[in-house]
Amino acid sequence: MNIALLALGTELTRGEALNGNGRVMAEELSAIGRDVHEILCVDDDTARIVEALRRLGEQYDFVIATGGLGPTTDDLTREAVARLLGTEVVTDPESLRKLEERLRARGRELTVTNSKMAQLPAAAKVVMNPAGSAIGFEVKIGRARCWFLPGVPAEALAMFRQSIVPVLLATGGPCTRQRILRTVDIAESAAGERLAGLEEKLGITLGYRVHAAELEVKVLATGAEPSAVEATVARGVAAVRERLGRHVFSEGATTLAQVVAELLHRQRRTLALAESCTGGVAAAELTAIPGISEVFLGSVVAYHNAVKEALLGVPPLELETFGAVSEPVAKSMAEGARRRLGAEVALSFTGIAGPEGGTPDKPVGLVHYALATPGETLARSQVFFGARPEVQRRAVAAGLELLRGWLLEREGGSA
Amino acid sequence: MNIALLALGTELTRGEALNGNGRVMAEELSAIGRDVHEILCVDDDTARIVEALRRLGEQYDFVIATGGLGPTTDDLTREAVARLLGTEVVTDPESLRKLEERLRARGRELTVTNSKMAQLPAAAKVVMNPAGSAIGFEVKIGRARCWFLPGVPAEALAMFRQSIVPVLLATGGPCTRQRILRTVDIAESAAGERLAGLEEKLGITLGYRVHAAELEVKVLATGAEPSAVEATVARGVAAVRERLGRHVFSEGATTLAQVVAELLHRQRRTLALAESCTGGVAAAELTAIPGISEVFLGSVVAYHNAVKEALLGVPPLELETFGAVSEPVAKSMAEGARRRLGAEVALSFTGIAGPEGGTPDKPVGLVHYALATPGETLARSQVFFGARPEVQRRAVAAGLELLRGWLLEREGGSA
Repeated sequence: MNIALLALGTELTRGEALNGNGRVMAEELSAIGRDVHEILCVDDDTARIVEALRRLGEQYDFVIATGGLGPTTDDLTREAVARLLGTEVVTDPESLRKLEERLRARGRELTVTNSKMAQLPAAAKVVMNPAGSAIGFEVKIGRARCWFLPGVPAEALAMFRQSIVPVLLATGGPCTRQRILRTVDIAESAAGERLAGLEEKLGITLGYRVHAAELEVKVLATGAEPSAVEATVARGVAAVRERLGRHVFSEGATTLAQVVAELLHRQRRTLALAESCTGGVAAAELTAIPGISEVFLGSVVAYHNAVKEALLGVPPLELETFGAVSEPVAKSMAEGARRRLGAEVALSFTGIAGPEGGTPDKPVGLVHYALATPGETLARSQVFFGARPEVQRRAVAAGLELLRGWLLEREGGSA
Repeated sequence: MNIALLALGTELTRGEALNGNGRVMAEELSAIGRDVHEILCVDDDTARIVEALRRLGEQYDFVIATGGLGPTTDDLTREAVARLLGTEVVTDPESLRKLEERLRARGRELTVTNSKMAQLPAAAKVVMNPAGSAIGFEVKIGRARCWFLPGVPAEALAMFRQSIVPVLLATGGPCTRQRILRTVDIAESAAGERLAGLEEKLGITLGYRVHAAELEVKVLATGAEPSAVEATVARGVAAVRERLGRHVFSEGATTLAQVVAELLHRQRRTLALAESCTGGVAAAELTAIPGISEVFLGSVVAYHNAVKEALLGVPPLELETFGAVSEPVAKSMAEGARRRLGAEVALSFTGIAGPEGGTPDKPVGLVHYALATPGETLARSQVFFGARPEVQRRAVAAGLELLRGWLLEREGGSA
């Protein structure tokens, strides 16, 4: 099996954007043992798009194309495909009706311009878009089955997973399975040392990827027989979990914030936050989780010291004596958030996210964080590396990990 | 002039890495008016590399390839080029001598494996590597002048800038210039309609890109004479600014939050936030800006109604009568944040970010937002589409846009 990914758009060939759709699709196809041999970006030029499609149709069994399906004049995909197939662009009445409904719900009118999003080459098959307005379509070009999806990542990936992955899975071929364990608070080299020898012993391949504050460990196996491959990967996952212990916080797509949210739900505990240097990033990570409102009460983003005093009750003398970036202030912030927001536990963050503001004593990246609980207040500090957003994200992960540990102890378990 | 970029490596086609070299080179070439028409990634397979090079040599004037020049068995570029040209791989004595020196300086020995880094196809011209061990080389394939560079970004980009950019600049040819305007609160189709006819009238090309809550409008022109092309683009930018009016908030890389931050700095006003459905996303966007602490005091993320009452002073009766997602509550939240945090202006957000919680009256995506100022409190509402994070980001953009409008009026300007 032979797959090519094609991304259309001058923003790609001018270097204004990276082909993120191509990367995610390639990664997800690779995880199910379907190999991509070529990822191509072509600019918005009908002749070059036609030429690229003609060649890919000769060389590949499957082509997945993204981009150029919007309503404006630089959206050329429909026309290029129609020209290559010697047919014309037509409107799909059912898609047009849905588009009109969608627009009406937003108080907008169907116009000549936006009705382009319900068009496709004659004889193409509509690919439904569960996440947006522009439809996709499927045609045969040369020997290749070709899908065309909009460039907007949320739409392209939803359509890819819904309409294309099942087709490619059903085609057979050698079988690869991959599972990803997500770990926190362990370096790539330390994980590699702990897992040394596992690959040979179990017939698996291990891969590592550092991803913000996390380290992902991929466990992969290939073979002819799906059930045997799955069993091999399962043995690998069990062995990695055993060797890395509490550092493994989830498998697959579950984030550290989601794991913490599940623990809070299960234990019926409520959480509040007090954020200085993380500036709302911790709250934003938690509130990205649907249903979090049952356990997450809120956050005081106390960027300015006066707000730390007024809304969190941090004693002015403490701020003066120790400075805002200090263990006493981190503790007072957590305790203040717990009390004022009426939560059972509260996490706080105060630090120097950079790029300015560091001193020899308190370097850029230094973050004090604390967890206030009914019994005691735990405090930690760490110097995080990276640019401002990385420092913020890494601090949030460290704080969530502190909370996860405390919640796990309350479960009587350790991993 | 016709340029293609080629990146070699299975890590790219498996989605483990993005082709960052391609993006940076495309961006730097585009900035000097040299157009890349195609960016291609191919996996580590000699036959496919040969085939790709043969085609690119027929289609393009210049090909810049990266990757596959390291010392290991999956580094196939030299062999592929030699096979295509019907020649063999040889060692460059001068490069071998330098490699040996370099290794010795690091206490390492020259081995059969690492001596590969001094090899190249016979008759190829060495391209010096100022930043690492592997040499690059240049050959003619078909009509194309082709350069081959290592994949390590620091090395590839140093060689690109030192040995390739000067050659491409010296070739003359048509000149391209591009400027990007960032707009908010206008749909792609509406912008397209307002700008209809401009391309023909001014001899420019317009491009559109939706980017979170924004729409980028690209204005592009090509011609023989750099100063004439720049003047054409400038006329295009002026015309687009005129037709889109206040929707254009910046040109280039400046974000909406940065524009608002600059206005706050210039007017010496302080800002506070009260966030419910946006859950810290607005605070996180603002605190991503270095230096924001002078004008941004903080945010109360009042996810739970009790927090809206306790920390923002929203009257319980108002919450009961109108519900948390309502104009009166949005106003009370903004006024409460302004008062309690001691800011001159405050923005609030309360809505239904989804995916659950919608009703016929208050659908998923409905957000009430308000701006409390010394004189009055402005309130707006809108139904935002997309998944939970998009609803949050779009609401934040709409709120920032409301604030930008108010601040601009205080400047006596309107755009």
